[in-house]
Amino acid sequence: MTATTDHSTLDSTAASELAGVSPRPSDDDPAFALHRGGKIGIALTVPLENREDLSLAYTPGVARVCTAIAETPALADDYTWRSNTVAVVTDGTAVLGLGDIGPLGSLPVMEGKAALFKHFGGVDAVPLALACTDVEEIVETVVRLAPSFGGINLEDISAPRCFAIERLLQDRVDIPVFHDDQHGTAIVALAALENAAKLTGRTLGDLRAVVSGAGAAGVAVTRILLAAGIGDIAVGDSRGIIYPGRDALTPVKAALAAETNSAGLTGSITDALRGADVFLGLSSGQVPEEAVATMAPEAIIFAMANPDPEVEPAIAHKYARIVATGRSDYPNQINNVLAFPGVFRGALDVRASRVTEGMKLAAATALADVIADELAEDLIIPSVFDPRVAPAVSAAVAAAARADGVARR
Amino acid sequence: MTATTDHSTLDSTAASELAGVSPRPSDDDPAFALHRGGKIGIALTVPLENREDLSLAYTPGVARVCTAIAETPALADDYTWRSNTVAVVTDGTAVLGLGDIGPLGSLPVMEGKAALFKHFGGVDAVPLALACTDVEEIVETVVRLAPSFGGINLEDISAPRCFAIERLLQDRVDIPVFHDDQHGTAIVALAALENAAKLTGRTLGDLRAVVSGAGAAGVAVTRILLAAGIGDIAVGDSRGIIYPGRDALTPVKAALAAETNSAGLTGSITDALRGADVFLGLSSGQVPEEAVATMAPEAIIFAMANPDPEVEPAIAHKYARIVATGRSDYPNQINNVLAFPGVFRGALDVRASRVTEGMKLAAATALADVIADELAEDLIIPSVFDPRVAPAVSAAVAAAARADGVARR
Repeated sequence: MTATTDHSTLDSTAASELAGVSPRPSDDDPAFALHRGGKIGIALTVPLENREDLSLAYTPGVARVCTAIAETPALADDYTWRSNTVAVVTDGTAVLGLGDIGPLGSLPVMEGKAALFKHFGGVDAVPLALACTDVEEIVETVVRLAPSFGGINLEDISAPRCFAIERLLQDRVDIPVFHDDQHGTAIVALAALENAAKLTGRTLGDLRAVVSGAGAAGVAVTRILLAAGIGDIAVGDSRGIIYPGRDALTPVKAALAAETNSAGLTGSITDALRGADVFLGLSSGQVPEEAVATMAPEAIIFAMANPDPEVEPAIAHKYARIVATGRSDYPNQINNVLAFPGVFRGALDVRASRVTEGMKLAAATALADVIADELAEDLIIPSVFDPRVAPAVSAAVAAAARADGVARR
Repeated sequence: MTATTDHSTLDSTAASELAGVSPRPSDDDPAFALHRGGKIGIALTVPLENREDLSLAYTPGVARVCTAIAETPALADDYTWRSNTVAVVTDGTAVLGLGDIGPLGSLPVMEGKAALFKHFGGVDAVPLALACTDVEEIVETVVRLAPSFGGINLEDISAPRCFAIERLLQDRVDIPVFHDDQHGTAIVALAALENAAKLTGRTLGDLRAVVSGAGAAGVAVTRILLAAGIGDIAVGDSRGIIYPGRDALTPVKAALAAETNSAGLTGSITDALRGADVFLGLSSGQVPEEAVATMAPEAIIFAMANPDPEVEPAIAHKYARIVATGRSDYPNQINNVLAFPGVFRGALDVRASRVTEGMKLAAATALADVIADELAEDLIIPSVFDPRVAPAVSAAVAAAARADGVARR
């Protein structure tokens, strides 16, 4: 997760780190104590207690299984752990809010992700932090690894490289490739916005939204909102609102410019917020109260930056009807863990060859619907510990994969 | 493991497969039933039950650990699963006796290996079957993966590529690289031969040995016996005894020719066996009884080919005092699982940067010594289920790593 999609509370210790104060490893710090020796391990799912066990799990029995797979490769999904296993792949270039700290530094996050995959989705995930950052090298490496996995979760790879890596990789493998910093965030944000719209008696088509941030998460949130039928949406980066022909547009931003901002806005985020219904913060840029005050009535503010939301919740509540953040110490936490375990659970269950737009949209709606009968201003998105979440998301994703023709069973 | 180092019993079903009869996947076959869904999974070693758990294992707590590792990379070995985790890497080119069946076909063996690593050595191992066979590509891929692992176990990669891959890879990473088909076999064979020599009142230096097979296992067994001080040793491949200047010598065989066969033998394995003390079979080539009959008194025969030993044990016993095979249904089974779990356990325990010759020799002696007080003609090597084996091997390997200056703690 990048800074803008790191959706848990940052306490004061972590905040001081982000401000440049280095932590000292100490088992007095409960985070270091917990991390000693790592957070995951390999477990056997078959017995190995005697010669007969050994002769089935290994030679000679294993030879029969190998031969069958060599003749019918799809059997690897039935007779190995492959079809339940995801590689969590990073190059360590955009880790939390810490930036480019390299593969070793990223490992605790990748292991944590693997733990979340197992705990919330029953998915076996292997942390793979790569010692290369070149787009082609990363793609080629993961292509070579693909026989061992049923899916690829890309993680903490900096923009704009992450866009090319995901696209090039999905073109070359027949298993789902999913950059969680993009699509996990997008799914959860869309689910929350669907519920916020419903609660305020509107549809997505009624809403004009402003996205602050055009990194991995900002781009993906914008795209999923477009696919879901948002009324209008303007995206701003550090140079202000994106529009066709503006200078300093990467290819990805140029494409966004062509699809967004039908009102033809120019200027800063502050200019865009005037009369807007929705603010989606996916950068660390703070938004002044005067700008928030100009939003439309019944405004919706998702200030997802961590540890410091783009708009302080107390300020946001003065002008908005619904407020969400990335922090666990406020209501309405936008947290990727609501999406990725169920998305991969569903994709693996039907042996999907990719994650389609339809699967992402279905995941968002299923996530929103979990609390359909409980909606309230401080409950527009389920708790990460709501046991209904992963089953609902995975069922919707599996059904959408079948509908989209990418399921293999 | 290659055919010649596949050291468990092949029953009649497996033997028929090797003869070209394809198995049908069926849950009536206990091997297929056991393999359904795979043999390993990921397990959490920390709790994730509530927000506090999540805030330590993942954000925000994990950020402190990431930052500490980014500043002091060696801390990754303390605070992630890395220092207990080995990649089991193959390209699927030499799988059991099945040959080049590709990465998917090899997966059940790699998973089985991972299960053995955990069960016998407490080592977390990840099966990685690569979709590439080029030496440079394999090396480069594993170099990129190295940050995530504490060691690399190469497996079922065909000779002579396996020799270059191991060497080039070890030159580029600072974690142990160990091709089990070579060195696992070599360690166990040396241990068995040490005990056989002891039991017959001789030293290794008293023995003249003949090795049949110059593939991965044959080369490695020869080298470790040279390092251990064997009296003389001649190696034969499908063209007969290897000597300097013979035609069809690969660089590896040319190097062997220079170090072996001080008697200057030429001709076939049969010619070499005349008066020899030891036969080590590491190919599938059968040896005629007439040749076995010409060996020296008190002969030692290790006929390790699977499923069909180079010399039938009943024949071997007519002329030899001590007989070992690769099969679990005869006494004295030469099985790699006696070595690799303890070798990696010891190497990881001291965070060794490589596996030295000294560590391999120490592993063999420790393995032999486990049954020092129980030696008998039908007990020259411990059972794979002897609980003393892995602790003895790992302790010896760790001590040798320290002595050789490759330990980091």
